[in-house]
Amino acid sequence: MNASEFRRRGKEMVDYMANYMEGIEGRQVYPDVEPGYLRPLIPAAAPQEPDTFEDIINDVEKIIMPGVTHWHSPYFFAYFPTASSYPAMLADMLCGAIGCIGFSWAASPACTELETVMMDWLGKMLELPKAFLNEKAGEGGGVIQGSASEATLVALLAARTKVIHRLQAASPELTQAAIMEKLVAYSSDQMVATLGTTTCCSFDNLLEVGPICNKEDIWLHVDAAYAGSAFICPEFRHLLNGVEFADSFNFNPHKWLLVNFDCSAMWVKKRTDLTGAFRLDPTYLKHSHQDSGLITDYRHWQIPLGRRFRSLKMWFVFRMYGVKGLQAYIRKHVQLSHEFESLVRQDPRFEICVEVILGLVCFRLKGSNKVNEALLQRINSAKKIHLVPCHLRDKFVLRFAICSRTVESAHVQRAWEHIKELAADVLRAERE
Amino acid sequence: MNASEFRRRGKEMVDYMANYMEGIEGRQVYPDVEPGYLRPLIPAAAPQEPDTFEDIINDVEKIIMPGVTHWHSPYFFAYFPTASSYPAMLADMLCGAIGCIGFSWAASPACTELETVMMDWLGKMLELPKAFLNEKAGEGGGVIQGSASEATLVALLAARTKVIHRLQAASPELTQAAIMEKLVAYSSDQMVATLGTTTCCSFDNLLEVGPICNKEDIWLHVDAAYAGSAFICPEFRHLLNGVEFADSFNFNPHKWLLVNFDCSAMWVKKRTDLTGAFRLDPTYLKHSHQDSGLITDYRHWQIPLGRRFRSLKMWFVFRMYGVKGLQAYIRKHVQLSHEFESLVRQDPRFEICVEVILGLVCFRLKGSNKVNEALLQRINSAKKIHLVPCHLRDKFVLRFAICSRTVESAHVQRAWEHIKELAADVLRAERE
Repeated sequence: MNASEFRRRGKEMVDYMANYMEGIEGRQVYPDVEPGYLRPLIPAAAPQEPDTFEDIINDVEKIIMPGVTHWHSPYFFAYFPTASSYPAMLADMLCGAIGCIGFSWAASPACTELETVMMDWLGKMLELPKAFLNEKAGEGGGVIQGSASEATLVALLAARTKVIHRLQAASPELTQAAIMEKLVAYSSDQMVATLGTTTCCSFDNLLEVGPICNKEDIWLHVDAAYAGSAFICPEFRHLLNGVEFADSFNFNPHKWLLVNFDCSAMWVKKRTDLTGAFRLDPTYLKHSHQDSGLITDYRHWQIPLGRRFRSLKMWFVFRMYGVKGLQAYIRKHVQLSHEFESLVRQDPRFEICVEVILGLVCFRLKGSNKVNEALLQRINSAKKIHLVPCHLRDKFVLRFAICSRTVESAHVQRAWEHIKELAADVLRAERE
Repeated sequence: MNASEFRRRGKEMVDYMANYMEGIEGRQVYPDVEPGYLRPLIPAAAPQEPDTFEDIINDVEKIIMPGVTHWHSPYFFAYFPTASSYPAMLADMLCGAIGCIGFSWAASPACTELETVMMDWLGKMLELPKAFLNEKAGEGGGVIQGSASEATLVALLAARTKVIHRLQAASPELTQAAIMEKLVAYSSDQMVATLGTTTCCSFDNLLEVGPICNKEDIWLHVDAAYAGSAFICPEFRHLLNGVEFADSFNFNPHKWLLVNFDCSAMWVKKRTDLTGAFRLDPTYLKHSHQDSGLITDYRHWQIPLGRRFRSLKMWFVFRMYGVKGLQAYIRKHVQLSHEFESLVRQDPRFEICVEVILGLVCFRLKGSNKVNEALLQRINSAKKIHLVPCHLRDKFVLRFAICSRTVESAHVQRAWEHIKELAADVLRAERE
């Protein structure tokens, strides 16, 4: 395929994307397929000779779409949102064309420098303590990781390296293995200190745990994967109080800040804590500026060596929405979750299980786990909406997460009517 | 931005991408900027109100492009190639629109199932032993990781978990810490068994090391990050001999197989070795099929929880090139590296440092490291082509890697003429 064919096919693909997004409400949110559905539909091996683009795009509708769970349908209320916006898609297209690998400053200076500045922009939106920012050559800084899991692992490895160095400096006779054997990582039942857990969007109290960590020289990593995006709104910023005690902080703009996956934002107070743990300097990656103290080589901040130009999508999204547009988006989702909450509260058969703070409502039928399991089973079999459950202590609970960029009050109302009907069926079946 | 504005802007972006690729030869391959160039060019914080798309796309040319190292320029001969093709870009656009997160089968069945089949397609192209394939419900299978580093880490953690389980089964009194303290990971000076090292594209002898590993019950992970793509050609397949002894094998289609970053292909002989190490089953991720034995939940195969629909770009590329097209592409690159090799060999001032097997030529001026460092410095200051060096034992060596999809004999010839001129300057300066 040459550039002129790409011009033609690329524009067709843009229309396909726009059609998909515009028509997504008409597609069944959860697919009908059974495990193994796809293999019989395609050849057992790659073709020797090229297929045509028409064949492929036809197969997308025939083979792929029937097996897609439509995360951006306004009837998708499962898990947590994954971000989707047109500006992010445009930026990702550009990222694909530039196709640079930003493992060092020299490998593509713009890739590193835009990331550093975008992480400062985002840190300022959250009113992060200045110690986490890179500007004015402080000791802190931000980096885009692929996922919160990677950020947690990076924090854990950095913390381990730091404590080993500290103990070995104090007691040179200690071996690394002897120290490692004694190391303890404290965590809650959701891992690390969390602001907005996946299960029920609960919050750890950083103002209590933070000072203890600082006093005992314990690395504090704070994960706000989902909730973090909300902290750009002044009315939710208090949920982040205590982050000043943290050594590292992470949240996922790819969840709720309209920056398509993957984009997990991580800040540290001391860049050298990361680069001390991950430094890798083969000759073929050395460049003239690396020891100048002026530059950032992000390969020292992460597990993978390679990295895409992911800050482009932050830049496009932040500029095309503006901070006010992003705040309005968060507020709309929170308002919709409260709307659903109040519908649930008006129905005496149901209960709300956890205080609704952001975009997640945990609710259930008053009664046994069995009846709630039956309700969820009916909901997900009907496939008009899609939800997933959680366990809160010993209770089986339904999670209603506001997810889609295009979800409106009407969708929430329709979802609730549907849930009520199925609940009536379940309760009737139980009585019979 | 709504769908109709996206239709317009998306098509403009397609043209921008095509213009960039068509005109890349006219751009200076390595940028002129100094560290810190970007920050003064953009505001210190995100705008409160939206900017226009015109402003942003103008800034791409004004602010971003001057700081880009053009990895897809036919004058880029540094590092190793990073893949770029139009079919992969089209697939990535679609991936962005679907925007599903495939951490479990249920989260988007098509995402998991296409990946499983594409890894089988690719495994067959390489003639991997059947034990690595997923089809017919064997014990093996493939997964797309983000990078070879992640694949290595995953293999290491899986190997560790496996040996701990084995030793604890044999000696239940052993604690995990006591076992961990004794564990040893053997590696070469390039880490793990490698086919085609980054430094000089050398090959470990799997037929020697493999049987020893199997006899001693040592996990063997084989990394062919760059070279792996070449094994789709029958004439290079012998380089993979011995992979039958490996427990896990990995290479990067995102380097040399026209599938844009990130797409690192990893296979294991026993899926349960991975899922035993990484299994994660909170209630909100459970689904009705997961214990059926029929499905794959890829979150158990990797460090991150989330994952994009990356197999789409394998599908598009394999189908639009066909196996023959991909083979032709590899062969063209190998031929160009031999063409450069023969140019170097014809010049008595130069020497070839390592046998040229695939697309990398390691060469130097006969003489001191200093004179070779001076030559590289001149090359990269002139910025007509871009190379990086390596150290082979104590020698400073220049690496000439065939990288761009569009590089032709004429570019290689021009690069060599340019290198010869600069070498003459260096040698003259040395004599003076």
